[in-house]
Amino acid sequence: MGRWEPNARGRLLQAALELYGERGFEQTTVAEIAERAGLTERTFFRHFADKREVLFAGAAALEELLVSTVAKAPDGLAPIDAAAAGIEAAGAAIQAGGELPRMRATIIAASAELQERELIKLASLASALADELRRRGVTEPAASLTAEAAIAVFRIAFERWINEPDQQDLPRLIRESLDELKAVTAGH
Amino acid sequence: MGRWEPNARGRLLQAALELYGERGFEQTTVAEIAERAGLTERTFFRHFADKREVLFAGAAALEELLVSTVAKAPDGLAPIDAAAAGIEAAGAAIQAGGELPRMRATIIAASAELQERELIKLASLASALADELRRRGVTEPAASLTAEAAIAVFRIAFERWINEPDQQDLPRLIRESLDELKAVTAGH
Repeated sequence: MGRWEPNARGRLLQAALELYGERGFEQTTVAEIAERAGLTERTFFRHFADKREVLFAGAAALEELLVSTVAKAPDGLAPIDAAAAGIEAAGAAIQAGGELPRMRATIIAASAELQERELIKLASLASALADELRRRGVTEPAASLTAEAAIAVFRIAFERWINEPDQQDLPRLIRESLDELKAVTAGH
Repeated sequence: MGRWEPNARGRLLQAALELYGERGFEQTTVAEIAERAGLTERTFFRHFADKREVLFAGAAALEELLVSTVAKAPDGLAPIDAAAAGIEAAGAAIQAGGELPRMRATIIAASAELQERELIKLASLASALADELRRRGVTEPAASLTAEAAIAVFRIAFERWINEPDQQDLPRLIRESLDELKAVTAGH
Protein backbone atom coordinates (compact mmCIF):
# COMPACT_ATOMS: atom_id res chain seq x y z
CA MET A 1 0.00 0.00 0.00
CA GLY A 2 3.00 2.29 -0.57
CA ARG A 3 2.62 5.61 -2.34
CA TRP A 4 4.28 4.13 -5.46
CA GLU A 5 1.12 2.10 -6.01
CA PRO A 6 -1.66 4.69 -6.09
CA ASN A 7 -5.12 3.11 -5.71
CA ALA A 8 -3.70 -0.41 -6.01
CA ARG A 9 -6.85 -1.88 -4.50
CA GLY A 10 -9.15 -0.14 -6.94
CA ARG A 11 -6.96 -1.06 -9.93
CA LEU A 12 -6.90 -4.71 -8.86
CA LEU A 13 -10.68 -4.72 -8.42
CA GLN A 14 -11.25 -3.18 -11.85
CA ALA A 15 -8.75 -5.57 -13.50
CA ALA A 16 -10.27 -8.62 -11.80
CA LEU A 17 -13.85 -7.72 -12.78
CA GLU A 18 -12.77 -7.11 -16.39
CA LEU A 19 -10.96 -10.44 -16.60
CA TYR A 20 -13.73 -12.42 -14.86
CA GLY A 21 -16.16 -10.92 -17.36
CA GLU A 22 -13.95 -11.63 -20.38
CA ARG A 23 -12.60 -15.09 -19.53
CA GLY A 24 -14.79 -16.33 -16.69
CA PHE A 25 -14.01 -16.40 -12.98
CA GLU A 26 -12.58 -19.94 -12.99
CA GLN A 27 -10.30 -19.29 -15.94
CA THR A 28 -8.67 -16.17 -14.50
CA THR A 29 -5.49 -16.35 -12.40
CA VAL A 30 -4.18 -13.93 -9.79
CA ALA A 31 -1.07 -13.47 -11.97
CA GLU A 32 -3.27 -12.23 -14.82
CA ILE A 33 -5.17 -9.85 -12.57
CA ALA A 34 -1.93 -8.36 -11.21
CA GLU A 35 -0.54 -8.02 -14.73
CA ARG A 36 -3.65 -6.26 -16.05
CA ALA A 37 -3.48 -3.86 -13.09
CA GLY A 38 0.23 -3.24 -13.66
CA LEU A 39 1.03 -4.60 -10.19
CA THR A 40 2.67 -7.67 -8.69
CA GLU A 41 1.00 -10.79 -7.30
CA ARG A 42 2.51 -9.87 -3.96
CA THR A 43 0.60 -6.59 -4.02
CA PHE A 44 -2.58 -8.51 -4.90
CA PHE A 45 -2.20 -10.67 -1.81
CA ARG A 46 -1.62 -7.61 0.36
CA HIS A 47 -5.13 -6.52 -0.55
CA PHE A 48 -7.10 -9.74 -1.08
CA ALA A 49 -6.91 -13.24 0.42
CA ASP A 50 -7.70 -14.86 -2.95
CA LYS A 51 -9.38 -14.16 -6.27
CA ARG A 52 -12.84 -14.92 -4.86
CA GLU A 53 -12.48 -12.34 -2.11
CA VAL A 54 -12.05 -9.58 -4.70
CA LEU A 55 -15.77 -10.01 -5.32
CA PHE A 56 -16.75 -9.92 -1.65
CA ALA A 57 -14.23 -7.50 -0.17
CA GLY A 58 -16.81 -4.71 -0.12
CA ALA A 59 -19.26 -6.71 2.01
CA ALA A 60 -17.81 -5.64 5.38
CA ALA A 61 -17.96 -1.94 4.51
CA LEU A 62 -21.53 -2.33 3.23
CA GLU A 63 -22.56 -4.08 6.45
CA GLU A 64 -20.95 -1.37 8.56
CA LEU A 65 -22.70 1.37 6.57
CA LEU A 66 -26.06 -0.37 6.89
CA VAL A 67 -25.69 -0.97 10.64
CA SER A 68 -24.36 2.51 11.46
CA THR A 69 -27.20 4.13 9.48
CA VAL A 70 -29.76 2.14 11.48
CA ALA A 71 -27.94 3.07 14.70
CA LYS A 72 -28.25 6.77 13.84
CA ALA A 73 -31.97 6.60 12.98
CA PRO A 74 -34.25 8.62 15.31
CA ASP A 75 -35.38 6.71 18.40
CA GLY A 76 -39.08 6.91 17.67
CA LEU A 77 -38.80 5.51 14.15
CA ALA A 78 -40.65 2.22 13.53
CA PRO A 79 -38.20 -0.71 13.18
CA ILE A 80 -39.10 -1.28 9.52
CA ASP A 81 -38.39 2.38 8.72
CA ALA A 82 -35.07 2.30 10.61
CA ALA A 83 -34.14 -0.81 8.60
CA ALA A 84 -35.28 0.95 5.42
CA ALA A 85 -32.90 3.85 6.13
CA GLY A 86 -30.08 1.31 6.37
CA ILE A 87 -30.81 -0.51 3.12
CA GLU A 88 -31.35 2.78 1.25
CA ALA A 89 -27.92 3.95 2.41
CA ALA A 90 -26.42 0.65 1.27
CA GLY A 91 -28.19 1.06 -2.08
CA ALA A 92 -26.82 4.58 -2.53
CA ALA A 93 -23.28 3.31 -1.81
CA ILE A 94 -23.64 0.51 -4.37
CA GLN A 95 -24.99 2.91 -6.96
CA ALA A 96 -21.94 5.14 -6.40
CA GLY A 97 -19.83 2.21 -7.64
CA GLY A 98 -20.92 2.97 -11.20
CA GLU A 99 -20.58 -0.01 -13.57
CA LEU A 100 -18.62 -2.20 -11.11
CA PRO A 101 -21.66 -3.55 -9.18
CA ARG A 102 -23.30 -4.61 -12.46
CA MET A 103 -20.10 -6.29 -13.67
CA ARG A 104 -19.83 -8.04 -10.32
CA ALA A 105 -23.46 -9.21 -10.41
CA THR A 106 -23.04 -10.68 -13.90
CA ILE A 107 -19.96 -12.64 -12.79
CA ILE A 108 -21.70 -13.96 -9.67
CA ALA A 109 -24.79 -14.99 -11.63
CA ALA A 110 -22.57 -17.21 -13.82
CA SER A 111 -21.19 -19.33 -10.96
CA ALA A 112 -23.02 -21.57 -8.47
CA GLU A 113 -20.10 -21.30 -6.05
CA LEU A 114 -20.19 -17.49 -6.13
CA GLN A 115 -23.96 -17.45 -5.75
CA GLU A 116 -23.60 -19.54 -2.58
CA ARG A 117 -21.06 -17.08 -1.22
CA GLU A 118 -23.45 -14.24 -2.02
CA LEU A 119 -26.28 -15.98 -0.12
CA ILE A 120 -24.00 -16.31 2.90
CA LYS A 121 -23.09 -12.64 2.67
CA LEU A 122 -26.76 -11.64 2.57
CA ALA A 123 -27.56 -13.91 5.54
CA SER A 124 -24.75 -12.24 7.46
CA LEU A 125 -26.14 -8.81 6.52
CA ALA A 126 -29.60 -9.82 7.82
CA SER A 127 -28.05 -11.12 11.02
CA ALA A 128 -26.09 -7.89 11.63
CA LEU A 129 -29.24 -5.84 10.96
CA ALA A 130 -31.26 -7.95 13.43
CA ASP A 131 -28.49 -7.43 16.05
CA GLU A 132 -28.70 -3.67 15.58
CA LEU A 133 -32.50 -3.68 15.82
CA ARG A 134 -32.24 -5.60 19.11
CA ARG A 135 -29.79 -2.97 20.35
CA ARG A 136 -32.53 -0.44 19.57
CA GLY A 137 -34.86 -2.39 21.85
CA VAL A 138 -36.81 -4.35 19.24
CA THR A 139 -37.80 -7.74 20.66
CA GLU A 140 -37.79 -11.13 18.96
CA PRO A 141 -39.16 -12.34 16.62
CA ALA A 142 -39.90 -8.79 15.39
CA ALA A 143 -36.19 -7.91 15.05
CA SER A 144 -35.35 -10.96 12.92
CA LEU A 145 -38.51 -10.66 10.83
CA THR A 146 -37.88 -6.97 10.15
CA ALA A 147 -34.26 -7.66 9.24
CA GLU A 148 -35.05 -10.59 6.94
CA ALA A 149 -37.85 -8.65 5.26
CA ALA A 150 -35.57 -5.63 4.74
CA ILE A 151 -32.80 -7.74 3.21
CA ALA A 152 -35.32 -9.44 0.92
CA VAL A 153 -36.48 -5.98 -0.20
CA PHE A 154 -32.87 -4.93 -0.73
CA ARG A 155 -32.05 -8.03 -2.78
CA ILE A 156 -35.13 -7.82 -4.99
CA ALA A 157 -34.62 -4.10 -5.63
CA PHE A 158 -30.98 -4.77 -6.44
CA GLU A 159 -31.98 -7.48 -8.96
CA ARG A 160 -34.41 -5.06 -10.63
CA TRP A 161 -31.67 -2.43 -10.78
CA ILE A 162 -29.29 -4.94 -12.39
CA ASN A 163 -31.82 -6.34 -14.85
CA GLU A 164 -33.46 -3.08 -15.87
CA PRO A 165 -30.60 -0.78 -16.86
CA ASP A 166 -33.06 2.07 -17.46
CA GLN A 167 -33.93 1.96 -13.74
CA GLN A 168 -31.09 4.17 -12.61
CA ASP A 169 -31.97 4.96 -9.03
CA LEU A 170 -31.37 2.06 -6.66
CA PRO A 171 -32.48 3.85 -3.44
CA ARG A 172 -35.78 4.69 -5.17
CA LEU A 173 -36.20 1.04 -6.25
CA ILE A 174 -35.58 0.03 -2.64
CA ARG A 175 -38.29 2.40 -1.38
CA GLU A 176 -40.71 1.13 -4.06
CA SER A 177 -39.98 -2.49 -3.18
CA LEU A 178 -40.56 -1.77 0.50
CA ASP A 179 -43.90 -0.15 -0.32
CA GLU A 180 -44.74 -3.23 -2.38
CA LEU A 181 -43.83 -5.50 0.55
CA LYS A 182 -46.07 -3.43 2.81
CA ALA A 183 -48.88 -3.82 0.29
CA VAL A 184 -48.48 -7.60 -0.09
CA THR A 185 -48.27 -8.24 3.64
CA ALA A 186 -51.40 -6.10 4.09
CA GLY A 187 -53.10 -8.66 1.82
CA HIS A 188 -53.26 -6.60 -1.38
CA MET B 1 -35.33 -51.21 -2.23
CA GLY B 2 -36.27 -54.92 -2.16
CA ARG B 3 -38.87 -56.17 0.30
CA TRP B 4 -36.11 -57.81 2.38
CA GLU B 5 -35.07 -54.34 3.54
CA PRO B 6 -38.22 -52.86 5.06
CA ASN B 7 -38.02 -49.08 5.47
CA ALA B 8 -34.32 -49.05 4.55
CA ARG B 9 -34.47 -45.33 3.82
CA GLY B 10 -36.00 -44.46 7.18
CA ARG B 11 -33.54 -46.70 9.04
CA LEU B 12 -30.58 -45.13 7.26
CA LEU B 13 -31.89 -41.63 8.04
CA GLN B 14 -32.37 -42.44 11.73
CA ALA B 15 -28.93 -44.12 11.97
CA ALA B 16 -27.21 -41.20 10.21
CA LEU B 17 -28.83 -38.56 12.45
CA GLU B 18 -27.91 -40.53 15.57
CA LEU B 19 -24.28 -40.90 14.49
CA TYR B 20 -23.92 -37.29 13.33
CA GLY B 21 -25.25 -36.22 16.72
CA GLU B 22 -22.99 -38.58 18.68
CA ARG B 23 -19.73 -38.24 16.72
CA GLY B 24 -20.19 -35.20 14.52
CA PHE B 25 -21.04 -35.08 10.83
CA GLU B 26 -17.42 -34.98 9.62
CA GLN B 27 -16.35 -37.93 11.78
CA THR B 28 -19.11 -40.28 10.59
CA THR B 29 -18.61 -42.61 7.61
CA VAL B 30 -21.19 -44.16 5.29
CA ALA B 31 -19.95 -47.60 6.42
CA GLU B 32 -20.84 -46.72 10.02
CA ILE B 33 -24.29 -45.46 9.04
CA ALA B 34 -25.02 -48.64 7.09
CA GLU B 35 -23.79 -50.80 9.97
CA ARG B 36 -25.92 -48.97 12.55
CA ALA B 37 -28.95 -49.41 10.29
CA GLY B 38 -28.18 -53.10 9.77
CA LEU B 39 -27.81 -52.56 6.03
CA THR B 40 -25.00 -52.51 3.45
CA GLU B 41 -23.16 -49.50 2.03
CA ARG B 42 -24.56 -50.50 -1.35
CA THR B 43 -28.08 -50.06 0.03
CA PHE B 44 -27.08 -46.66 1.43
CA PHE B 45 -26.00 -45.51 -2.02
CA ARG B 46 -29.25 -46.75 -3.55
CA HIS B 47 -31.03 -44.20 -1.36
CA PHE B 48 -28.60 -41.30 -0.94
CA ALA B 49 -25.84 -39.80 -3.11
CA ASP B 50 -23.58 -39.20 -0.11
CA LYS B 51 -23.71 -38.65 3.64
CA ARG B 52 -24.56 -34.96 3.27
CA GLU B 53 -27.60 -35.69 1.16
CA VAL B 54 -29.13 -37.70 3.99
CA LEU B 55 -29.72 -34.34 5.65
CA PHE B 56 -31.25 -32.69 2.59
CA ALA B 57 -33.09 -35.56 0.95
CA GLY B 58 -36.43 -34.31 2.31
CA ALA B 59 -36.07 -30.90 0.67
CA ALA B 60 -37.61 -31.88 -2.68
CA ALA B 61 -40.72 -33.37 -1.03
CA LEU B 62 -41.07 -30.30 1.19
CA GLU B 63 -40.83 -28.00 -1.84
CA GLU B 64 -43.43 -30.05 -3.72
CA LEU B 65 -45.80 -29.97 -0.74
CA LEU B 66 -45.40 -26.22 -0.35
CA VAL B 67 -45.92 -25.51 -4.05
CA SER B 68 -48.87 -27.89 -4.48
CA THR B 69 -50.59 -26.39 -1.42
CA VAL B 70 -50.24 -22.91 -2.90
CA ALA B 71 -51.51 -24.20 -6.25
CA LYS B 72 -54.65 -25.55 -4.54
CA ALA B 73 -55.40 -22.33 -2.61
CA PRO B 74 -58.67 -20.58 -3.61
CA ASP B 75 -58.28 -18.17 -6.53
CA GLY B 76 -59.39 -15.08 -4.64
CA LEU B 77 -56.93 -15.54 -1.78
CA ALA B 78 -54.38 -12.74 -1.30
CA PRO B 79 -50.88 -13.87 -2.40
CA ILE B 80 -49.50 -13.64 1.14
CA ASP B 81 -52.30 -15.87 2.44
CA ALA B 82 -51.79 -18.41 -0.36
CA ALA B 83 -48.08 -18.46 0.52
CA ALA B 84 -49.01 -18.81 4.21
CA ALA B 85 -51.08 -21.91 3.43
CA GLY B 86 -48.00 -23.40 1.76
CA ILE B 87 -45.58 -22.73 4.61
CA GLU B 88 -48.10 -23.94 7.21
CA ALA B 89 -48.45 -27.22 5.31
CA ALA B 90 -44.65 -27.51 5.18
CA GLY B 91 -44.52 -26.81 8.92
CA ALA B 92 -47.10 -29.51 9.66
CA ALA B 93 -45.08 -32.02 7.61
CA ILE B 94 -41.89 -31.16 9.48
CA GLN B 95 -43.65 -31.46 12.82
CA ALA B 96 -44.88 -34.92 11.83
CA GLY B 97 -41.21 -35.96 11.69
CA GLY B 98 -41.09 -36.03 15.49
CA GLU B 99 -37.60 -35.67 16.92
CA LEU B 100 -35.80 -36.06 13.58
CA PRO B 101 -36.14 -32.40 12.46
CA ARG B 102 -34.67 -31.22 15.79
CA MET B 103 -31.80 -33.69 15.54
CA ARG B 104 -31.19 -32.53 11.99
CA ALA B 105 -31.25 -28.84 12.95
CA THR B 106 -28.70 -29.39 15.74
CA ILE B 107 -26.33 -31.15 13.33
CA ILE B 108 -26.67 -28.42 10.69
CA ALA B 109 -26.09 -25.66 13.27
CA ALA B 110 -22.73 -27.25 14.12
CA SER B 111 -21.30 -27.04 10.58
CA ALA B 112 -20.66 -24.00 8.37
CA GLU B 113 -20.73 -26.22 5.27
CA LEU B 114 -24.15 -27.64 6.19
CA GLN B 115 -25.49 -24.18 7.04
CA GLU B 116 -24.49 -23.03 3.54
CA ARG B 117 -26.32 -25.96 2.02
CA GLU B 118 -29.37 -25.08 4.12
CA LEU B 119 -29.29 -21.47 2.89
CA ILE B 120 -29.23 -22.74 -0.70
CA LYS B 121 -32.17 -25.03 0.02
CA LEU B 122 -34.18 -22.13 1.47
CA ALA B 123 -33.33 -19.91 -1.51
CA SER B 124 -34.55 -22.66 -3.81
CA LEU B 125 -37.76 -22.93 -1.78
CA ALA B 126 -38.34 -19.16 -2.11
CA SER B 127 -37.70 -19.35 -5.84
CA ALA B 128 -40.17 -22.24 -6.32
CA LEU B 129 -42.78 -20.36 -4.28
CA ALA B 130 -42.31 -17.20 -6.38
CA ASP B 131 -42.72 -19.32 -9.55
CA GLU B 132 -46.02 -20.70 -8.26
CA LEU B 133 -47.28 -17.24 -7.28
CA ARG B 134 -46.51 -16.02 -10.81
CA ARG B 135 -48.48 -18.97 -12.16
CA ARG B 136 -51.37 -17.67 -10.03
CA GLY B 137 -51.06 -14.33 -11.84
CA VAL B 138 -49.10 -12.38 -9.22
CA THR B 139 -46.82 -9.89 -10.96
CA GLU B 140 -43.24 -8.93 -10.09
CA PRO B 141 -41.84 -7.74 -7.76
CA ALA B 142 -44.88 -8.73 -5.63
CA ALA B 143 -44.39 -12.46 -6.32
CA SER B 144 -40.73 -12.48 -5.26
CA LEU B 145 -41.34 -10.23 -2.26
CA THR B 146 -44.23 -12.38 -1.05
CA ALA B 147 -42.18 -15.55 -1.49
CA GLU B 148 -39.09 -14.18 0.26
CA ALA B 149 -41.17 -12.80 3.11
CA ALA B 150 -43.00 -16.12 3.52
CA ILE B 151 -39.76 -18.12 3.60
CA ALA B 152 -38.31 -15.68 6.16
CA VAL B 153 -41.42 -16.23 8.31
CA PHE B 154 -41.05 -19.99 7.89
CA ARG B 155 -37.38 -19.96 8.85
CA ILE B 156 -37.84 -17.75 11.91
CA ALA B 157 -40.81 -19.79 13.14
CA PHE B 158 -38.80 -22.98 12.61
CA GLU B 159 -35.91 -21.56 14.66
CA ARG B 160 -38.31 -20.70 17.49
CA TRP B 161 -39.74 -24.20 17.32
CA ILE B 162 -36.26 -25.71 17.53
CA ASN B 163 -35.02 -23.42 20.30
CA GLU B 164 -38.15 -23.45 22.44
CA PRO B 165 -39.00 -27.13 22.96
CA ASP B 166 -42.13 -26.18 24.89
CA GLN B 167 -43.48 -24.54 21.73
CA GLN B 168 -44.93 -27.68 20.26
CA ASP B 169 -47.03 -26.45 17.39
CA LEU B 170 -44.99 -25.34 14.39
CA PRO B 171 -47.94 -24.35 12.13
CA ARG B 172 -49.19 -22.10 14.96
CA LEU B 173 -45.74 -20.53 15.31
CA ILE B 174 -45.76 -19.92 11.56
CA ARG B 175 -49.12 -18.15 11.77
CA GLU B 176 -47.92 -16.06 14.71
CA SER B 177 -44.72 -15.10 12.91
CA LEU B 178 -46.70 -14.09 9.84
CA ASP B 179 -48.96 -11.90 12.01
CA GLU B 180 -45.81 -10.37 13.51
CA LEU B 181 -44.41 -9.68 10.04
CA LYS B 182 -47.70 -8.00 9.08
CA ALA B 183 -47.43 -5.87 12.23
CA VAL B 184 -43.80 -4.82 11.64
CA THR B 185 -44.33 -3.96 7.98
CA ALA B 186 -47.36 -1.89 9.02
CA GLY B 187 -44.91 0.16 11.10
CA HIS B 188 -45.76 -1.19 14.56
